Amino acid sequence: MKTSAPTFSQRHKIHFSECDPAGIVFYPQYFVLFNDLVESWIDTLLPEGYHGVIGARRVGLPTVHLEVDFKAVSKMGDEVWLSLDVERIGHASLTLAWACTGTDGVVRMSARQTIVTTSLDTHKAMPIPDDLREAIGRAAPAAEVRAREH
Amino acid sequence: MKTSAPTFSQRHKIHFSECDPAGIVFYPQYFVLFNDLVESWIDTLLPEGYHGVIGARRVGLPTVHLEVDFKAVSKMGDEVWLSLDVERIGHASLTLAWACTGTDGVVRMSARQTIVTTSLDTHKAMPIPDDLREAIGRAAPAAEVRAREH
Amino acid sequence: MKTSAPTFSQRHKIHFSECDPAGIVFYPQYFVLFNDLVESWIDTLLPEGYHGVIGARRVGLPTVHLEVDFKAVSKMGDEVWLSLDVERIGHASLTLAWACTGTDGVVRMSARQTIVTTSLDTHKAMPIPDDLREAIGRAAPAAEVRAREH
Amino acid sequence: MKTSAPTFSQRHKIHFSECDPAGIVFYPQYFVLFNDLVESWIDTLLPEGYHGVIGARRVGLPTVHLEVDFKAVSKMGDEVWLSLDVERIGHASLTLAWACTGTDGVVRMSARQTIVTTSLDTHKAMPIPDDLREAIGRAAPAAEVRAREH
Repeated sequence: MKTSAPTFSQRHKIHFSECDPAGIVFYPQYFVLFNDLVESWIDTLLPEGYHGVIGARRVGLPTVHLEVDFKAVSKMGDEVWLSLDVERIGHASLTLAWACTGTDGVVRMSARQTIVTTSLDTHKAMPIPDDLREAIGRAAPAAEVRAREH
Repeated sequence: MKTSAPTFSQRHKIHFSECDPAGIVFYPQYFVLFNDLVESWIDTLLPEGYHGVIGARRVGLPTVHLEVDFKAVSKMGDEVWLSLDVERIGHASLTLAWACTGTDGVVRMSARQTIVTTSLDTHKAMPIPDDLREAIGRAAPAAEVRAREH
Repeated sequence: MKTSAPTFSQRHKIHFSECDPAGIVFYPQYFVLFNDLVESWIDTLLPEGYHGVIGARRVGLPTVHLEVDFKAVSKMGDEVWLSLDVERIGHASLTLAWACTGTDGVVRMSARQTIVTTSLDTHKAMPIPDDLREAIGRAAPAAEVRAREH
Repeated sequence: MKTSAPTFSQRHKIHFSECDPAGIVFYPQYFVLFNDLVESWIDTLLPEGYHGVIGARRVGLPTVHLEVDFKAVSKMGDEVWLSLDVERIGHASLTLAWACTGTDGVVRMSARQTIVTTSLDTHKAMPIPDDLREAIGRAAPAAEVRAREH
């Protein structure tokens, strides 16, 4: 059981707009929620924010791999925590662990996401920019240690 | 020029997920943002919240009319205020005025939305529930006065 | 009552993904459906298609005004026609009339949309490109006549 | 290399509405596209269609596990095939293999999805309805054989 605080988390109330005719989160919406979470996290790491990385620097952060478990439903109006941890920092990629956990403690969904850094002009991989790598290392020191060991 | 505080407002940072290939808000996303805003507002008015009205009571709040002006673009990363005012409280309908205004003071989009209250079993109009009407009247006393005059 | 064929239309089955916890179309989804319809229509007008206008030419087609009436609900699984007519061709703008009509003949939603042509570099209005104007004129000759009279 | 025809497929042109500020498919949109694909496939298997299973019968088809590889970008205007194969039919679950492949033959994204059948009243697993199981077995005979061997 994980007891330490996640690298980054936000509380969220499940909106009507996120739910399907069964009254529960339409699962693609989780990916929107976590994309927004990663964005908010990067906003805390770099002064120019996520939109500055994507926009002015033309560095993309596309997802290349996902493994997801949907463990319990989230209903309209439920209060949840969306959290992420850094599992691994590579040369040109990053692996994050996500969880959506109800304020009742029940994990609704968890996932592992691998992001690569790319040039938005060529859509080819490029090294993680130094300032972003350093900021992630400060935010998630354990991940930085694991990366050095590889 | 409107100088009084709106009935309800929330600050929002425009997400990557809300933007289109032109790097600006994909306009249908505004309607999602304002649906979420109305939901958050109703959450402040009734203890059971918007999801309680829709879910347990089976009272729908569909939109029947919209008039919208898109005046300036909102770009990824922009900070905006989403606000709503109550223009009219009818027997079974409600007219809201929306605005999305940058923290630079520029109105990006404004709209007038008419909502009706319906039974979710028949999709037919029904009177606004008394407790909701009273709560709206307290939140927007001027609208309540206009409604009485009609 | 309108009896002539619309300028452009497509049949569509309402998807689960487009519906809300009330089991009916979540209204912002109509705007996505009609954005896709306008795109498919432009694809028939110009060899390079909508994405060529937006992408290679950097000409934007943002919406500046919308008036919408939601008249009847569309449920998951309903078969509908999405149609558009050209109401007006201006110098740098275009007004379209939309309708979503069930195969039962019941109009679910209708709207009037004003689009402007912009430079995606400056987000400022620019004249409708000649080839697009000519293609629209051929597709909707009555609208072209109305435009000349103004 | 897979050479046989998939169990079900549809051609699709990538819409503007599905793309992000990088001009490529916003990855959560793939899950919407494949949800729609599974829906269209079920529509071909049962006379009442997907919406009849969800709506009248109150049988849910939630996703419980996903593994996804994003291999190449899909750009606005790209023509792709969305396809699915049945990998496994279990007692109360189903595993599908998805692929999004450009008409240029390049696989853009592939995934494995596990769906369970649930009661929408309790959100608990229930056996796959007999008529649905039989129809899937006819559509994907090889999967049926693998299921019997387990």
